[in-house]
Amino acid sequence: MVGTREVIERYCETLEARDWAAFGTVLAPDVRYEVPQSGTVIEGREKYVVFNREYPGEWHIWPVRLVAEGDHAALWISFEVDGKPVHGIGFFTVADGLVSRISDFWPEPYEPPSGREDLVSRAP
Amino acid sequence: MVGTREVIERYCETLEARDWAAFGTVLAPDVRYEVPQSGTVIEGREKYVVFNREYPGEWHIWPVRLVAEGDHAALWISFEVDGKPVHGIGFFTVADGLVSRISDFWPEPYEPPSGREDLVSRAP
Repeated sequence: MVGTREVIERYCETLEARDWAAFGTVLAPDVRYEVPQSGTVIEGREKYVVFNREYPGEWHIWPVRLVAEGDHAALWISFEVDGKPVHGIGFFTVADGLVSRISDFWPEPYEPPSGREDLVSRAP
Repeated sequence: MVGTREVIERYCETLEARDWAAFGTVLAPDVRYEVPQSGTVIEGREKYVVFNREYPGEWHIWPVRLVAEGDHAALWISFEVDGKPVHGIGFFTVADGLVSRISDFWPEPYEPPSGREDLVSRAP
C-alpha cells in the first residue's frame, strides 16, 4: 500500500493539475474536511471534489513543508489566489491509503504587537 | 540521540511547566523562531526563553496533534490564554537533538464565507 507521504504528494499534484478524477482517487468516500477557524465541515468525496473544482479565482498551490508519520501528515503550502499568496496548513489522516480526514487552517497576515522590540525583529 | 518526536514532547512539557531551565536545554543556542503571518523573528535561545517566560496572561498549551518525521515535526496545539482557546501550529526543525527552527502560525477564527451551503455545513 502506498505510504502516507506519497498519498499527500499525490493529493497536491492532482489538486494543482485540476485532475479531478485523479484527485478523487486519493480521497476516502467518506472523507471529512473541516476548517476549525470557521467551524465549517464538508463531508464526502463528491462534495469535497466539487468544492475544490468550483473554488473561485486563479489559484495555485506550492508545498512548503510536508511531514508524514504513520497515518498522519501535516502540510504547509503557499496558496496563491489571483496573485496574492497566503499560507495554508492541513493536518491529514490517511486510512487504507486514502485521505480520510483533513483539518485545514488559513492563517491571515497581521501586524505584530508592539512592546517586545528588545526580543523581536522583522524579517527583511 | 533523542528522536524528533521526543524533543517536541519535551518542548511542550517544559513550556507548560514554566521550567525555563529545562525549556532552554531543548533549544539550539542559535534557535530561530519566526511568525510568517507578522514577519517577526526571534533569534537565539536566550531571547526565545525570555519571550516565553514573559508572555502575558494565564496561558496553557494542550497538544492536539504531533507529526514527526526525520528532522522535522509539525505540532498543532490548543493554546488557552485567560480562558480563551486559540489554535497554534508550529513547524519545527530539529538538529543534533535540539530545536533549531520554529515557524509558528496563529490562525484566528473567522466567519465562513456564504454561498456554498450546498456543500458546507457548520460543526455543532
